[in-house]
Amino acid sequence: MLTHFDAKGDAHMVDVSGKAVTARTARAEGAVRMSPETLRLVTEGTAKKGDVLGVARLAGIMGAKRTADLIPLCHPLPVTSVSVELSPDATLPGVRIEATVKTTGQTGVEMEALTAVSTAALTVYDMLKAAQKDMEILGIRVMLKEGGKSGRYEAAP
Amino acid sequence: MLTHFDAKGDAHMVDVSGKAVTARTARAEGAVRMSPETLRLVTEGTAKKGDVLGVARLAGIMGAKRTADLIPLCHPLPVTSVSVELSPDATLPGVRIEATVKTTGQTGVEMEALTAVSTAALTVYDMLKAAQKDMEILGIRVMLKEGGKSGRYEAAP
Amino acid sequence: MLTHFDAKGDAHMVDVSGKAVTARTARAEGAVRMSPETLRLVTEGTAKKGDVLGVARLAGIMGAKRTADLIPLCHPLPVTSVSVELSPDATLPGVRIEATVKTTGQTGVEMEALTAVSTAALTVYDMLKAAQKDMEILGIRVMLKEGGKSGRYEAAP
Amino acid sequence: MLTHFDAKGDAHMVDVSGKAVTARTARAEGAVRMSPETLRLVTEGTAKKGDVLGVARLAGIMGAKRTADLIPLCHPLPVTSVSVELSPDATLPGVRIEATVKTTGQTGVEMEALTAVSTAALTVYDMLKAAQKDMEILGIRVMLKEGGKSGRYEAAP
Amino acid sequence: MLTHFDAKGDAHMVDVSGKAVTARTARAEGAVRMSPETLRLVTEGTAKKGDVLGVARLAGIMGAKRTADLIPLCHPLPVTSVSVELSPDATLPGVRIEATVKTTGQTGVEMEALTAVSTAALTVYDMLKAAQKDMEILGIRVMLKEGGKSGRYEAAP
Amino acid sequence: MLTHFDAKGDAHMVDVSGKAVTARTARAEGAVRMSPETLRLVTEGTAKKGDVLGVARLAGIMGAKRTADLIPLCHPLPVTSVSVELSPDATLPGVRIEATVKTTGQTGVEMEALTAVSTAALTVYDMLKAAQKDMEILGIRVMLKEGGKSGRYEAAP
Repeated sequence: MLTHFDAKGDAHMVDVSGKAVTARTARAEGAVRMSPETLRLVTEGTAKKGDVLGVARLAGIMGAKRTADLIPLCHPLPVTSVSVELSPDATLPGVRIEATVKTTGQTGVEMEALTAVSTAALTVYDMLKAAQKDMEILGIRVMLKEGGKSGRYEAAP
Repeated sequence: MLTHFDAKGDAHMVDVSGKAVTARTARAEGAVRMSPETLRLVTEGTAKKGDVLGVARLAGIMGAKRTADLIPLCHPLPVTSVSVELSPDATLPGVRIEATVKTTGQTGVEMEALTAVSTAALTVYDMLKAAQKDMEILGIRVMLKEGGKSGRYEAAP
Repeated sequence: MLTHFDAKGDAHMVDVSGKAVTARTARAEGAVRMSPETLRLVTEGTAKKGDVLGVARLAGIMGAKRTADLIPLCHPLPVTSVSVELSPDATLPGVRIEATVKTTGQTGVEMEALTAVSTAALTVYDMLKAAQKDMEILGIRVMLKEGGKSGRYEAAP
Repeated sequence: MLTHFDAKGDAHMVDVSGKAVTARTARAEGAVRMSPETLRLVTEGTAKKGDVLGVARLAGIMGAKRTADLIPLCHPLPVTSVSVELSPDATLPGVRIEATVKTTGQTGVEMEALTAVSTAALTVYDMLKAAQKDMEILGIRVMLKEGGKSGRYEAAP
Repeated sequence: MLTHFDAKGDAHMVDVSGKAVTARTARAEGAVRMSPETLRLVTEGTAKKGDVLGVARLAGIMGAKRTADLIPLCHPLPVTSVSVELSPDATLPGVRIEATVKTTGQTGVEMEALTAVSTAALTVYDMLKAAQKDMEILGIRVMLKEGGKSGRYEAAP
Repeated sequence: MLTHFDAKGDAHMVDVSGKAVTARTARAEGAVRMSPETLRLVTEGTAKKGDVLGVARLAGIMGAKRTADLIPLCHPLPVTSVSVELSPDATLPGVRIEATVKTTGQTGVEMEALTAVSTAALTVYDMLKAAQKDMEILGIRVMLKEGGKSGRYEAAP
């Protein structure tokens, strides 16, 4: 049932040698919840002090490229596109993060999209922790996965 | 206000050269929510098939060591202790993760603890994604931070 | 004669641009020799205390993915499968390690298989060194290499 | 007994926070066995074609710096000295490797010395594999470890 | 004379075990020369389209942390401060880069400062190469080095 | 105009999913200027003491493989050939560096060639800095880029 274990129950990297090389896309989302005061530092910052969201966007993009280094049984693969969007949301209150990753390969890129979101969220925390320590990272999940034999998956809204 | 930006608003790595070298500890937590069926694969797996929690624990420990590679403005520092605990929780339902990191240095290790939790959570997702795609990573936050000038911080329960 | 040197005798990464993209497999083996008492810690550990072989297996799989970072003239390539087996052997006495790596590419993966074995062996040493310092890593060699123009190579038993 | 496991048997990075910062040295050795014809390529190469031993020496030094990336439960530490010696040995026949690593820290550097030897040996294999596939890496062990509470260890000759 | 070679002429990492732990600072500079049209994309970009200088600043800071991974005989050391400034200069025309790095350790940080400048310069090139291919990276040099036994060095203006 | 920014002006990794997989080559050059006395250490060193150029050549080749780790928006891609040439030039005086990189992929390799030159130049500086601190890295630029839709680019001599 769990593909990352062989018949004896030992962990291994799944053999994808026989899978077709197809175009694959994945999108993931997540958020960092913070106080309205901290969020104000972010939104004002973009305009005139420092660019919290810009730094976190870069970190997310670079994080996607490190996925196979971090996740033990993840296949290394050359991603062909990574974009990360961060948007302040006063109703959370906090920052919403969405990452989209593409490749042409033998295995999906949802781990790359999740790692991008996760790294961007950690970076948001790092840049704001001097102002607030009890922020929370939440709601990290896969929104879309397409390409490959298992077909299209889209999360419930 | 935000220490990661200088007077002009440009991002930089905070200068900690003048800070005292002290013993520092941080503890962070987080969770992966999944269906009861998926959780059963984890709990049965530990006993007789594959060891999802063991692989995620290792990934979390190794992730803590990569923190300064991932978080752009984070100081590199030689951690002296990392432990990561993962425990199934039927009431979530899912897996709870807690990481504790120590160092003797000039800056805190809460980013290392958060990165350990985050990497372990991503690994849990990776190992179970063949069974369930709509798992969610949530509740990643700092529980304890001590050592250094800013004093002890403990999260509300 | 040595392909890693050019006509002037300078080291370079061999140009494989013109080679065919084919399915390639390599298998390597090695061992860690230890006292019967130390081996007992491993075999009992798997059952009820800590899982030395499970940690070393993960390290070997992750090590295979770092091969091109470690070996200066090795081509980076996206491996499609890595498995590492560790088995206690009372006649050695010690732990035997075997790694199998696959890719679809322009160059072989025997260095990845050897690096997996080597990293797993180092990890076995690390985890047991508190009990015994004079363990020895030995017998690391390529057992099988297939795919590519140079044909199938199988080691003498 | 095995320090890399906690009371429950879970793997963790040993807490060295309370250990003294002392000068520490470790020396490890190993070898690559090959045919006399292959060894001749090395010894002649050093003089006039390519420099197999020089490339492997560099790889060994750089490998020592990657130890904590490769060995899951190894502490990261800033090494203060690494030297790697490779010498042809016609009686093996093959290449003997010796690495010495120093640090001033809270934990020993025998894993760094072993990783240096191991990486250098893999590099020797990589550079000569076009000439001979059945070379063997053998005899990797710690020769000397000093500094720290556990005292001086020297291997039997 | 060259400290990176031992008595036999073999490359090694210099032994700094016996050197004093002192506060050390280094500053390096460099530039990327481009056409006035390309420079205009940078200066207008900062204000309203994309932030070339912000991305390059981050890359420079992260590059400083990778120095010991890139430069074979460089000692790994935990930097305590990195700042990178990029400023458009119409008289070049192009972008001037200055990096300042600090540590408290046994060896200098001029390689970290040079690597920060160099990585920032490469990133400027990468982000502007769609507009101009014949940009040039130039004038990378150490401006200041202080701390340690060899005393203060300041470049001629 | 600048492809690394999307319609809103946010940095992203350009989507190359739709581009053709073609053979691509890039060549870059650069230099390190030094005093005639320092250059003499290099040229004599090659013959009888240490091999500055050999170490820098290796560093350049390995640096090319780290390009996507260093340059935030650069696509990871498996290079199929890297060669780096370093030659003493008494008229500079100093060391000239040229790197050629190839791949079969969806995006060019000029960043890999520039990173190889840049890393080799930094390594030359590192190895000679005990003799001269005011060396300068200069003239890093792309000489040739071919393959892919944008056609052949060759620098003016």
